[in-house]
Amino acid sequence: MIIKQIIDAIQDDYPADFSHCYGCGRLNEDGHHFRTGWDNNQTVTIYTPEPEHTAIPGFVYGGLIASLVDCHGTGSASLALHRKNGHEPGDGMEPPRFVTASLNVDFLKPTPQGITLKAIGTPEEVHPKKFIIHTEVYAGDTLCAKGAVTAAVMPATFKSS
Amino acid sequence: MIIKQIIDAIQDDYPADFSHCYGCGRLNEDGHHFRTGWDNNQTVTIYTPEPEHTAIPGFVYGGLIASLVDCHGTGSASLALHRKNGHEPGDGMEPPRFVTASLNVDFLKPTPQGITLKAIGTPEEVHPKKFIIHTEVYAGDTLCAKGAVTAAVMPATFKSS
Repeated sequence: MIIKQIIDAIQDDYPADFSHCYGCGRLNEDGHHFRTGWDNNQTVTIYTPEPEHTAIPGFVYGGLIASLVDCHGTGSASLALHRKNGHEPGDGMEPPRFVTASLNVDFLKPTPQGITLKAIGTPEEVHPKKFIIHTEVYAGDTLCAKGAVTAAVMPATFKSS
Repeated sequence: MIIKQIIDAIQDDYPADFSHCYGCGRLNEDGHHFRTGWDNNQTVTIYTPEPEHTAIPGFVYGGLIASLVDCHGTGSASLALHRKNGHEPGDGMEPPRFVTASLNVDFLKPTPQGITLKAIGTPEEVHPKKFIIHTEVYAGDTLCAKGAVTAAVMPATFKSS
């Protein structure tokens, strides 16, 4: 957990049409702007919750953590398939785009507010078009949640109008 | 699915200290204000996503659906234990408060934007202090997601400072 910021995020390379996600779209003015990159063979998303993202005062809202795990998962799947195809974020190639088929989060401890969160993912290829991303969410050094996202290559029918 | 609005929501009866949740706290000015009530023996939360809650344009962000399932789950668990204790929302008794132990969402179909969502839950008591809430999320008549929340009575250590 030495990495402090994401330099080359996969979301930076998504085409504009797919960059309006409330969680990770760089073009969604109201969204969280999650950004996901590699740290060796693991994927990392770093985010500091806003003051309003509370469960009860002092602790982070679980739905925000679920949102982090979700976008971290689809971003990690995109990173993994992009790398398998010979590409890294920032190399100018358009990455594959994934959707979430299922999301699971186990909340292990209340997550303290005011601390930067780090989602660390391990991608597992389970099918040429499907990955499971196993994720741990840390607040500082404390493991607060574990998650798993099953992410599938975006079907052609799921298109922007 | 005849119910059109929630008259007596369990969240209306949470004490002020526990009403700052970004998802369902009535005192969180920036939050979603999810409200959950009974429809016979099922629980219902009704919510219309905001325009910024997009996955890609035209479809609702999965993290918002996960947030809905999450707060609907804890609210439903509170409703269920409150009823078991002989109470209904609006009767002036303070309800028990739950936290999410685990959250699972299966995204069955892309959820269209601009349509009111309805989460319908079936509470299952699995322990005197723990419920599993099985939830279906509809956009109009279309089942878009299924979820399950394991909710536990809030431990005394998880308190507002």
